[in-house]
Amino acid sequence: MTLVESSGLPADAFSAKCPTRQVLDHIANKWTVLIVDCLAAGPLRYNQVRRRIDGISQKMLTQTLQGLAADGFVHRTQYATVPPRVEYELTELGQSLREPISAIREWTEKHINEVERARAGLGSA
Amino acid sequence: MTLVESSGLPADAFSAKCPTRQVLDHIANKWTVLIVDCLAAGPLRYNQVRRRIDGISQKMLTQTLQGLAADGFVHRTQYATVPPRVEYELTELGQSLREPISAIREWTEKHINEVERARAGLGSA
Repeated sequence: MTLVESSGLPADAFSAKCPTRQVLDHIANKWTVLIVDCLAAGPLRYNQVRRRIDGISQKMLTQTLQGLAADGFVHRTQYATVPPRVEYELTELGQSLREPISAIREWTEKHINEVERARAGLGSA
Repeated sequence: MTLVESSGLPADAFSAKCPTRQVLDHIANKWTVLIVDCLAAGPLRYNQVRRRIDGISQKMLTQTLQGLAADGFVHRTQYATVPPRVEYELTELGQSLREPISAIREWTEKHINEVERARAGLGSA
C-alpha cells in the first residue's frame, strides 16, 4: 500500500478526495492511451503524433500533451531551429505506464468482435 | 491481429473509424475502471456500487452501467421482490477486463507520489 505524501492517507482511487482519482482520470482516457502508446517507440514531433492518431483535433492533442507533461509522463523539448522543432518523449515515469496502457488498447483490439456481438444482442449477456 | 467482422479491416484503435476507437473510449474511463474493479469480487446491488465509489453521481453510475451492459461487460439481473432488487455482475467478457483494468488503477495508486512531485516541479521531467 502506498501512502500519499501530500495527505498522509493511503492511496485509494475509490475515494473521491484522494489525488489518485484525478490521475486515474488523466490516464484512463482514450487519448492518453493512444499518445503514450505511440510515443512508446521513441520521441516524435507534434505533427508525427497527430498523423499517427487519426481523428484527434489539434486542440485535444495540445491539451492532452500539456496534461501529460504536467503529470510528468511526457517531456517536451524545443530545438532552436528555424522553424522551431518540438519533440515529445516519454519520461521514465511515462515509460512505466507503457505496459498497463498497451494492455488496455490490446484488449480492445482483441475483443472487438465479442463487443460488437454483445451490442447486436447476440452476446451471452 | 484481429479482423473486425463488421468491417473486414484489421482492428486498429489508431484509426478513427475503427469500432475499437469507441470501445477504447468506454473502457479507458475512470468510472469504468472503478466499476469493473469493484464488481471483480462478485455481484453487487446498485447502491452497493454507489457507496463503494465515493463521489460518483447517480446519473453517471446509471449511464456507465448501461454502457457497460450494452457492450456486454456487465449483466443486470432484476429480482421480482418488493421493492425490486437489481444486481450487477461481470459477464465472462467483463471478467477478462479485470486484469488490464486493475493494472491501471494499481499503477495510479503506486505512482501517485511521483506524479505529485512532477506536478510540483520537482520531478525529473
